[in-house]
Amino acid sequence: MLTLIGLGLHGFEGISLRGLETARRADKIFLEVYTSPTIIDMNKLQNKLGKSVSILRREDIEEKDTLLSEAEGKEIALICPGDPLIATTHINLVIEARKKGVETRVLHAASIYTAAIGESGLHIYKFGRMATLPIPSDFLPFSVYECIEENKKRGLHTILLLECDVEREERLSVGEALKTLLRMEAERKGNIINKKQTIIILSGLESAEGFKDAGIMEDIMYKEFPALPTAMIIPGRLHFTERAAFESFFHLKNPCT
Amino acid sequence: MLTLIGLGLHGFEGISLRGLETARRADKIFLEVYTSPTIIDMNKLQNKLGKSVSILRREDIEEKDTLLSEAEGKEIALICPGDPLIATTHINLVIEARKKGVETRVLHAASIYTAAIGESGLHIYKFGRMATLPIPSDFLPFSVYECIEENKKRGLHTILLLECDVEREERLSVGEALKTLLRMEAERKGNIINKKQTIIILSGLESAEGFKDAGIMEDIMYKEFPALPTAMIIPGRLHFTERAAFESFFHLKNPCT
Repeated sequence: MLTLIGLGLHGFEGISLRGLETARRADKIFLEVYTSPTIIDMNKLQNKLGKSVSILRREDIEEKDTLLSEAEGKEIALICPGDPLIATTHINLVIEARKKGVETRVLHAASIYTAAIGESGLHIYKFGRMATLPIPSDFLPFSVYECIEENKKRGLHTILLLECDVEREERLSVGEALKTLLRMEAERKGNIINKKQTIIILSGLESAEGFKDAGIMEDIMYKEFPALPTAMIIPGRLHFTERAAFESFFHLKNPCT
Repeated sequence: MLTLIGLGLHGFEGISLRGLETARRADKIFLEVYTSPTIIDMNKLQNKLGKSVSILRREDIEEKDTLLSEAEGKEIALICPGDPLIATTHINLVIEARKKGVETRVLHAASIYTAAIGESGLHIYKFGRMATLPIPSDFLPFSVYECIEENKKRGLHTILLLECDVEREERLSVGEALKTLLRMEAERKGNIINKKQTIIILSGLESAEGFKDAGIMEDIMYKEFPALPTAMIIPGRLHFTERAAFESFFHLKNPCT
């Protein structure tokens, strides 16, 4: 049996009691550290679990099959950041496990997706398709622009995650993300992205360096945000209760959407 | 300070370690039991917390202001099912607290939204707007039909939650939900809902009665599912990796979308 155990948003303390108990009973515990830059104190973690924990890198899952050969006939716990199956890598892992006849189950935990939506005060029912803004390359990510466009046309909000490559220690900053959006607007001229538009930034939720801010794009662009997983929300049409939340959560009376 | 502490999907064991510690340190602990039919063993809960816990009903929050008058100058913990701010009632509570000068914070937990998407094996990036299917009344919920229509036209998946009124002990069954969808199709004739379409049902995730199934609508319609929170997914276009997940998770080779 392979059990994927969610770690939630930040640090080891986001694990559920059910997750903790399951990990304690496992024959072997792995910690996956490559899909999100969660900072884990390994001593604390191992003390809390009463067992040693092996760190698993991307290549250990994608190439070496380390985990699945251990899981045949044993209880293996794989602790992963966030809610485990939101990362497609983990879906593939479950598919591979089942091919080998290894049973799997998932113990869920907080995900940046619902946490960021909740902390924005906007209604989850009014969010359209989400996207991840990639670290800049030679190509502009127009699929992200189209995602915002589709949502805006329907009055829906868009949540964007900012890419973070943990193993290469690279992450997209808020400033770079906004510049990318404005460059795409300059090419496409769809009147989708506007410097005067209010956006919401949510960074490092549940960590000591956590940060939540909203403002017009051209102001947010030059602010510094801590180097932690970051989500950005581009609001669509606001319901009056969402306006009330905006004012209460961000002290902004007239967000410009 | 008012801290909203998420309980995750089922029972007390879904709380995070951070949530548990915070509740233990609080001057007073409330448990909210009206937004989701979570079954909590109150003795176990109070033993684990080492404190008595007061049950809060909807009217206590919406009318009586019980919670907020307690929270002035004290540490109050409110334990809520799922991820706390996904329920709009809780967003309003935070707004009211802030008006009274009561600081608030949120400790996140697993939400049915990401848990159900994860367990379906479909990619979260390909989900459009979500909706809740209400318990039948005199009116057909055409806004839900339109939500599925918008998503389908863009090839996106739709997640629907089935309404559950905890205080009136009423819930929408899978069979009723599907009949409602077919009645709307019969009126609108948008070729959106089809009896031969494959759908996914996820019920009571992380509970002993939990259930996960997929099949064509006319077969699923007559199955019995346990009386627990239920999510339904109507898939849009499938990516080949999503097809692989479908086969692995539900033993269905050719889902009809």
